[in-house]
Amino acid sequence: MSQALEQLREHLATIRDLNHAAGLLSWDQRTQMPRGGASTRAEQLATISRISHELFTGEKTLKLLDAINVADLPPDSDEARLISHTRYNYERSTKLPAEFIAKQSRVRALAGNVWEDARAKSDFAMFQPHLETIVDMVREQAELLGYDEHPYDALLNSYERGLTTNQAIALFDELKAGTVPLALKIAAMGDDGRDAPLHGNYPEALQEEFGKKVTVRYGYDWNRGRQDRSTHPFCTNFGRDDVRITTRFNPNWLAPALFGTLHETGHALYEQNIKPELNRTPLGRGTSLGVHESQSRMWENIVGRSRPFWEFFYGDLQATFPEPLVNVDLEKFYRAVNTVKPSLIRVEADELTYNLHILLRMELEIALLEGKLKVADLPEAWNAKMQTYLGITPANDAEGVLQDIHWSGMMFGYFPTYTIGNVLSVQLFDTAVAKHPEIWDEMRRGEFGTLLGWMRENILQHGSKFLPNELIKRATGRPMDAAPYVKYLQTKFGELY
Amino acid sequence: MSQALEQLREHLATIRDLNHAAGLLSWDQRTQMPRGGASTRAEQLATISRISHELFTGEKTLKLLDAINVADLPPDSDEARLISHTRYNYERSTKLPAEFIAKQSRVRALAGNVWEDARAKSDFAMFQPHLETIVDMVREQAELLGYDEHPYDALLNSYERGLTTNQAIALFDELKAGTVPLALKIAAMGDDGRDAPLHGNYPEALQEEFGKKVTVRYGYDWNRGRQDRSTHPFCTNFGRDDVRITTRFNPNWLAPALFGTLHETGHALYEQNIKPELNRTPLGRGTSLGVHESQSRMWENIVGRSRPFWEFFYGDLQATFPEPLVNVDLEKFYRAVNTVKPSLIRVEADELTYNLHILLRMELEIALLEGKLKVADLPEAWNAKMQTYLGITPANDAEGVLQDIHWSGMMFGYFPTYTIGNVLSVQLFDTAVAKHPEIWDEMRRGEFGTLLGWMRENILQHGSKFLPNELIKRATGRPMDAAPYVKYLQTKFGELY
Repeated sequence: MSQALEQLREHLATIRDLNHAAGLLSWDQRTQMPRGGASTRAEQLATISRISHELFTGEKTLKLLDAINVADLPPDSDEARLISHTRYNYERSTKLPAEFIAKQSRVRALAGNVWEDARAKSDFAMFQPHLETIVDMVREQAELLGYDEHPYDALLNSYERGLTTNQAIALFDELKAGTVPLALKIAAMGDDGRDAPLHGNYPEALQEEFGKKVTVRYGYDWNRGRQDRSTHPFCTNFGRDDVRITTRFNPNWLAPALFGTLHETGHALYEQNIKPELNRTPLGRGTSLGVHESQSRMWENIVGRSRPFWEFFYGDLQATFPEPLVNVDLEKFYRAVNTVKPSLIRVEADELTYNLHILLRMELEIALLEGKLKVADLPEAWNAKMQTYLGITPANDAEGVLQDIHWSGMMFGYFPTYTIGNVLSVQLFDTAVAKHPEIWDEMRRGEFGTLLGWMRENILQHGSKFLPNELIKRATGRPMDAAPYVKYLQTKFGELY
Repeated sequence: MSQALEQLREHLATIRDLNHAAGLLSWDQRTQMPRGGASTRAEQLATISRISHELFTGEKTLKLLDAINVADLPPDSDEARLISHTRYNYERSTKLPAEFIAKQSRVRALAGNVWEDARAKSDFAMFQPHLETIVDMVREQAELLGYDEHPYDALLNSYERGLTTNQAIALFDELKAGTVPLALKIAAMGDDGRDAPLHGNYPEALQEEFGKKVTVRYGYDWNRGRQDRSTHPFCTNFGRDDVRITTRFNPNWLAPALFGTLHETGHALYEQNIKPELNRTPLGRGTSLGVHESQSRMWENIVGRSRPFWEFFYGDLQATFPEPLVNVDLEKFYRAVNTVKPSLIRVEADELTYNLHILLRMELEIALLEGKLKVADLPEAWNAKMQTYLGITPANDAEGVLQDIHWSGMMFGYFPTYTIGNVLSVQLFDTAVAKHPEIWDEMRRGEFGTLLGWMRENILQHGSKFLPNELIKRATGRPMDAAPYVKYLQTKFGELY
């Protein structure tokens, strides 16, 4: 058996290497590649992905899995978890027939192009037939993957293993009850211009330098990372020792690059702190999108938009950007970075209203999947929900139903993980602080070692060894719970507005 | 048969994609990767190379080759050449047993590390036992690969298919007779300091900008390329539509980055101008190291160090770098960039003495291979030849026998391709000018389209479709010939000294 285990490890390491190579091809495509390289790069990516997929779904994987009796292994050992994780993914990957996957690739590629055009022209009708095909295929996908209660479960599980539709709905109900009234109240107050200090002369190079200083204090290891520019910021990695972030700078607006950097650094800290033993195994990555997002949102928002954080960093920031900040005191700046302003675009949303954008999308996805909503009626349903939850209505579909790339990529069930991340960020942070109350004081001194240390010990180091539910319960003593997050939002924004 | 051909193409395209992915992993390693990523990157590279090698040497390749009757195809068709090229490489690749290749990897990795240390400490004795193993293995490799006349033929053919030891010796004899007396005469004259204008305040960003302007005029397509920094300059590509160069800048010395850029651009022009039909096939790359080097050396030296070139560019250069160049006229600058100064280090050698460095190495490689020279006696033999050909003697082994990486990498037979490149550069350039005498006038106007066009038509577009000998004969009407190159050197440097 130990020989089969060794062979399985080697087999999976090969697949992991291929996936990391594909990751580098993508990173390069988005940050370095000359434009002319696009079509050849697509071929290279397709080849690597195909070989990796063939290796993983091939009979060798099953044969090696079958040769190992997982019951002989301690249930919490890395080995036992590697095997159950691999078997789950193997079984899942063999549920979608090759023809379905091929069709999916074609439909996504075409729909992606059409979506870009449609958004540019704000013309939903162009995109509608493609989205209809996609909804049909998503329904088929759910049936192929299988589920216990609701077809949406199957989709959620692609991104957040173990999450059920009922769980997600209950969570959003709690959020809705706890935050919509506050969001609508703030919307009714109108814009008081408190975010003005964030706009002004913010030279790109200085933004980059300041952001880097913060990430160093957060604990991002630049010897195992780097930062580049890209149109859409992201974090990617090729093993725990090469974890890269990207940023988009606006020389007249501080917020996107600064908080974008802190956000991506949160993702990077997860990957850099996975224990080395899991490198080159399928467990050597964050356990789910939601748990990943808990880290990015924590370092971006709970830490990066807190008073203690800015008590330490604001003097330096003010000295770095005297022109826009000379007459802005700490409190005024703190209020600026925590401006709540109901907006049409999800990626620009503040902490309080962000989840309402997600809620809206999840409800629409479920209605489409259940056939209760027709694709043709989607723009109208979108606009109605925007009015209900945020008190505003898009002027056109480009800033409404066409704004996100996800649906053209057939990524139904993805959106909720953003909110799961928010919910978990507070649950985890509160637990860390309860255990180590000195975290706040450290923050005032620009130190984050205790916080990162607790996260490393309880979350990060384990990679995908534990399922999200199990990991959260181990770390906090209870399942995912929206209450701390609702309380955090009410306290923070109740005071600010 | 056409189905087998289609399958073979697809099979080879997959392998090509893998090799290009490995190429990107290497490029990234040398230009972008954070230091911490080194060991994981090594694993990724090993995995991709192993899969590519297994696919190519596997039975599928042979089965598909055997299913195609090459005699049915027009002998000069891309298809016929693809098949004969593939069969040759297949047969060659299966001649080295897996154990030999594995041992080779281990010995190279270890010897590479030891060589670095040995060079740093100028301690040949440290490196000696490793080089002894390497010489033994190189001898074994030659026997495994097979040869008609001389074991060195087998090694030369790894880099320059069709080249024989006798041919190489005859070529170097001609060069020796034609250039050693001139080189020794110049050495005896002593250094008159004529290269002084190249040293001074040359800000890096301005060097980069000026170099870029030249490459644009050369015809390097920046939409399908980019330039980065690396310790050792190189050119790499991932298909004809993504061909990248790297450069090393010295802010106090113009020559290395400028001529390095022109050199790598020559390599890049080759790859960018291969006809698109050969993309993703094994023919879609330069046909040999020597022919590749003919392009880099032509654009670097014959063009880039010529009077007509500088008649066009010098005004701009002087305006860009007024401080070091204000009192330097065109003729003085032209003489500076063509300084001949016998030096100890090959990579810093001028046009005239460069080949003598190569000659020395080739003679030593042959003597080692034949057993006429013992590794222990190598430093002494090296120093003696330096005195004979260049009139100087290294003060230590770091600037002598330990200076090159090649032997630690088991790359015997590689060095001669540098000189082949020089020889071919003049033979090809002269042919182009004989056909299109306007090339010189165009150069004076900063135009290079006719020269590049002739090269594209006769050399570049064909990729590896024709063997080097055949390609040169088709392009120039005769086999490789050192006479034009000797004449070029004698004329140019006879006038200058």
